[in-house]
Amino acid sequence: MEHRSEAGETDRPTIPCTPEAVQNEGLVLVFLATPAEVSMELAPAMLDAGVRVIDLSGAFRLRTVENYARWYGAQHTSPQWLADAVYGLPEYFRNRIPGARLVANPGCYPTAANLAIRPLIDAGAIDRLAGIVCDAKSGVSGAGRKPSLKTSFCEVTENFSAYSILNHRHVPEVLMTSGLDECEFSFTAQLIPIHRGILETIYFRGKNLNSAEDIVAIYKERYKAEPFLRIHKAGNAPDLHAVAGTNFCDLGAVYDGRTGRAVVVAAIDNLTKGAASMAVQSMNLMLGFAETEALL
Amino acid sequence: MEHRSEAGETDRPTIPCTPEAVQNEGLVLVFLATPAEVSMELAPAMLDAGVRVIDLSGAFRLRTVENYARWYGAQHTSPQWLADAVYGLPEYFRNRIPGARLVANPGCYPTAANLAIRPLIDAGAIDRLAGIVCDAKSGVSGAGRKPSLKTSFCEVTENFSAYSILNHRHVPEVLMTSGLDECEFSFTAQLIPIHRGILETIYFRGKNLNSAEDIVAIYKERYKAEPFLRIHKAGNAPDLHAVAGTNFCDLGAVYDGRTGRAVVVAAIDNLTKGAASMAVQSMNLMLGFAETEALL
Amino acid sequence: MEHRSEAGETDRPTIPCTPEAVQNEGLVLVFLATPAEVSMELAPAMLDAGVRVIDLSGAFRLRTVENYARWYGAQHTSPQWLADAVYGLPEYFRNRIPGARLVANPGCYPTAANLAIRPLIDAGAIDRLAGIVCDAKSGVSGAGRKPSLKTSFCEVTENFSAYSILNHRHVPEVLMTSGLDECEFSFTAQLIPIHRGILETIYFRGKNLNSAEDIVAIYKERYKAEPFLRIHKAGNAPDLHAVAGTNFCDLGAVYDGRTGRAVVVAAIDNLTKGAASMAVQSMNLMLGFAETEALL
Amino acid sequence: MEHRSEAGETDRPTIPCTPEAVQNEGLVLVFLATPAEVSMELAPAMLDAGVRVIDLSGAFRLRTVENYARWYGAQHTSPQWLADAVYGLPEYFRNRIPGARLVANPGCYPTAANLAIRPLIDAGAIDRLAGIVCDAKSGVSGAGRKPSLKTSFCEVTENFSAYSILNHRHVPEVLMTSGLDECEFSFTAQLIPIHRGILETIYFRGKNLNSAEDIVAIYKERYKAEPFLRIHKAGNAPDLHAVAGTNFCDLGAVYDGRTGRAVVVAAIDNLTKGAASMAVQSMNLMLGFAETEALL
Repeated sequence: MEHRSEAGETDRPTIPCTPEAVQNEGLVLVFLATPAEVSMELAPAMLDAGVRVIDLSGAFRLRTVENYARWYGAQHTSPQWLADAVYGLPEYFRNRIPGARLVANPGCYPTAANLAIRPLIDAGAIDRLAGIVCDAKSGVSGAGRKPSLKTSFCEVTENFSAYSILNHRHVPEVLMTSGLDECEFSFTAQLIPIHRGILETIYFRGKNLNSAEDIVAIYKERYKAEPFLRIHKAGNAPDLHAVAGTNFCDLGAVYDGRTGRAVVVAAIDNLTKGAASMAVQSMNLMLGFAETEALL
Repeated sequence: MEHRSEAGETDRPTIPCTPEAVQNEGLVLVFLATPAEVSMELAPAMLDAGVRVIDLSGAFRLRTVENYARWYGAQHTSPQWLADAVYGLPEYFRNRIPGARLVANPGCYPTAANLAIRPLIDAGAIDRLAGIVCDAKSGVSGAGRKPSLKTSFCEVTENFSAYSILNHRHVPEVLMTSGLDECEFSFTAQLIPIHRGILETIYFRGKNLNSAEDIVAIYKERYKAEPFLRIHKAGNAPDLHAVAGTNFCDLGAVYDGRTGRAVVVAAIDNLTKGAASMAVQSMNLMLGFAETEALL
Repeated sequence: MEHRSEAGETDRPTIPCTPEAVQNEGLVLVFLATPAEVSMELAPAMLDAGVRVIDLSGAFRLRTVENYARWYGAQHTSPQWLADAVYGLPEYFRNRIPGARLVANPGCYPTAANLAIRPLIDAGAIDRLAGIVCDAKSGVSGAGRKPSLKTSFCEVTENFSAYSILNHRHVPEVLMTSGLDECEFSFTAQLIPIHRGILETIYFRGKNLNSAEDIVAIYKERYKAEPFLRIHKAGNAPDLHAVAGTNFCDLGAVYDGRTGRAVVVAAIDNLTKGAASMAVQSMNLMLGFAETEALL
Repeated sequence: MEHRSEAGETDRPTIPCTPEAVQNEGLVLVFLATPAEVSMELAPAMLDAGVRVIDLSGAFRLRTVENYARWYGAQHTSPQWLADAVYGLPEYFRNRIPGARLVANPGCYPTAANLAIRPLIDAGAIDRLAGIVCDAKSGVSGAGRKPSLKTSFCEVTENFSAYSILNHRHVPEVLMTSGLDECEFSFTAQLIPIHRGILETIYFRGKNLNSAEDIVAIYKERYKAEPFLRIHKAGNAPDLHAVAGTNFCDLGAVYDGRTGRAVVVAAIDNLTKGAASMAVQSMNLMLGFAETEALL
């Protein structure tokens, strides 16, 4: 029991964020929490130095330079790594993550959307002709830490607003992972005046469904071996308090059998399951630790 | 310039909320901000005493006892007044409000929804087969002032949750006013951790539309004489700060011409345009005042 | 009833913020909501052009260049105007404001502090040897609109912190107006995670007092002709909701007769009584309008 | 890795809160998070059944029935246990807690106040004649979970208010532990619109002090062996984010050597160091675990 250092200070050692320093320290894996344009340069340099990389930016999530150019409005400068990058959503790419050299950690919005939508697509439970609506809401930390008028306290408190309507750069991750065409998927991002958490309300018309219990059954079967998915009873929906600070994704479903209208609600913490702790989940897989190590 | 009374006190005179007291005072109109089950008894008593009534509850908004029974889960005890009640949405019932004895002030959610949806239905701009999704979010004041765990500060702050999914009692007001069938309309209510304001994100597939400008043009034409509707430029969406404390409804539209996906966003203050100030707007019409009196 | 312009737009005419433009338009008075270093240059230019000025910065509040240098850490570049400037607290300088050419609108914190403390000093009700503590809390708008990490939503929400402890630049305005020596006055500013409002909790030892009623009586007597001061019953304290958006200052007092410990609480809205609406109050006095015009 | 139960449900076993059930299960210690009037009855019953008790209410914190009657406005019904109860502030009663049968877990406000004030009293660094002011602010969870108008979201958000001015029932815990007379200590509690956290701003006149560094040195010396106290550099003050969800108490100090005015700021999380995790800290001591077990 020794005395702590000055409050607000830390004596944790740091090293420069360079391939040389990382090599010298003998690190086998780095997390990059850098902007896409930085990750595009830094990740290949780390990889060339023999270090495995989990990149939290969007740099390596999409599979083609065309897609990257369209959604990020910039040219990809390391296209040679796109094919090797593994999309780090363990629930769907658990077999490929352990051997990956470069893991592209998923975006926060697509994580909730894919975990909610993909099982229903796979089960043929969605009338795709009628389209899927994903109305997404995120806490302000999703916008990053850099000060801006848009994220300043007085603009956000007692307010609510939509942004990137139909045009958010996370959309292609849902199309890619859940196998949807853009015309089938309407997505709006919105800012909740809270620190952390994403709630997505997803609307579709059911196919081969009789009741919300059927949706719940699909989720339970698909996720029965998953440690971080929790399914609500039919008719109930999750909230953000239940997932704050955790690696859980909570799902709930409501269904009107008479008209076929369906709503599923997905909740995650954008800073953990939507970013940092899912990256740790991938690291656990990559380094041979128990997948839930440090996460449960 | 005289000295104010004690802070926190008021010397405004009050009278009992009875037909007799109201008659004795010679009032010609009363506002009822009482629960539906109270309004059902009190409004007829006031009306029988010759006093006009603007009722802010849901008691007289629906036209049939069957509908009331379904959505309110109770028997209507004054069905004789349902036919006479005028739905107090001035933008659509301005001709009937001045002569009304009983005005049923609209619900907060339907006000935003109808002002956004009805012009597009009337213009044939919505592919109704694909359905309309209305993802609605409200500040906590929408739940009333009575203390409950659900609306206590610690449950609400840093949280976000959906309720009454597909089953909110305000739904029939949208069906009735915009002329939709229930199977065409999916509605979810959600609680924003703020005091006041409603934002609704409405999704549909466009018909006979080329761009968001077309939607804006429909709104501008329909509402060109309306003092309380403000239309954003194509591609822009309103937020809640802009309508807080006002009688405005702000509308914005986004459209993807290639796929036909459309999103419109409507913003009102649930306590004013969604309740009190719209009631005053109706009162102005009923008593022959300028419609914007005290509201602009 | 004409159609409104685009939501979010305005067609209010603007003119350049220069003496020439102001003269050309024939304006007789301008409000400057500029930083102190800008006001120091701009106000004299406006005054030289024959325009009266209400300056909302700290540029002309202190009476000496030495004081300015100490608290603002900068040299005053227009010292010739310090003597002419009138401190725009109508409750104490009502006689001088009507004839003033330059009014220095008070700081938000000193407005609440002076309105609470000065009457008690004047009445000899404070044991000054024991000192006065003013623990002040402000909404985030008090920090201005410029984005910074300190005022970004995620830093402020669910947080509370003190700043400028014993060293806030508003302190000299309290010393000057209430006639205190610095050693008698301890002041700490703190950030509340809200948009607007200042609450100050002021501690002292009473002199010649028996009960909270005595404090209330002093306030009521002193402010009996004031339209914007509201005094709570003995033992009660104001909150911020009651003053939000108003020009009121609410005061409350608690006293323990046995030990002489006293607490008074003052509440204002920092954006109105602490800034804009008090400036309008001064303008009303300067231009011969009713002092409460547009404010009650 | 097995499948989780329904989200929102739990399969953790519960037992009745009775001495019999507790005995049957062979429990050696119980935490009581019950109101004082319940704890007064329940704790003795548990103790008589041979179970040790950590009581989180105020029932056993004060040493005399007179004191209890004065501050809690009720008669103590188990006075025979007052002498045996150990006040569970490990930093000051670490020697007595391990052998205690009944630990009275301290109030949240006094925990921060005593940890900040007592070392300075012991060091003779406070001019007690001038008095100590403790301006305390707490998140809403400090008011308990029971719904009330006072703690409902719409009353609290964008508001700030003081309560129990000079009269809070936690005051005697500070007098008792720091050895102050009531006339020396002015305390006001205030409600911050946040979930959790207490920040106390404490004012006094220094004795035998030259600078803030002297105060910091006193804290560092006194708490050098304490795992849960963190001291800021002179001139810096803690905020609530740094202590949220932790068992830490952070302290900071500012001093004006010329006038002797001193301010110290203490921050804790009222739900952890101010309640639950401090109770665990005491349990660790009582059961022979490492004191920081599960807390660091």
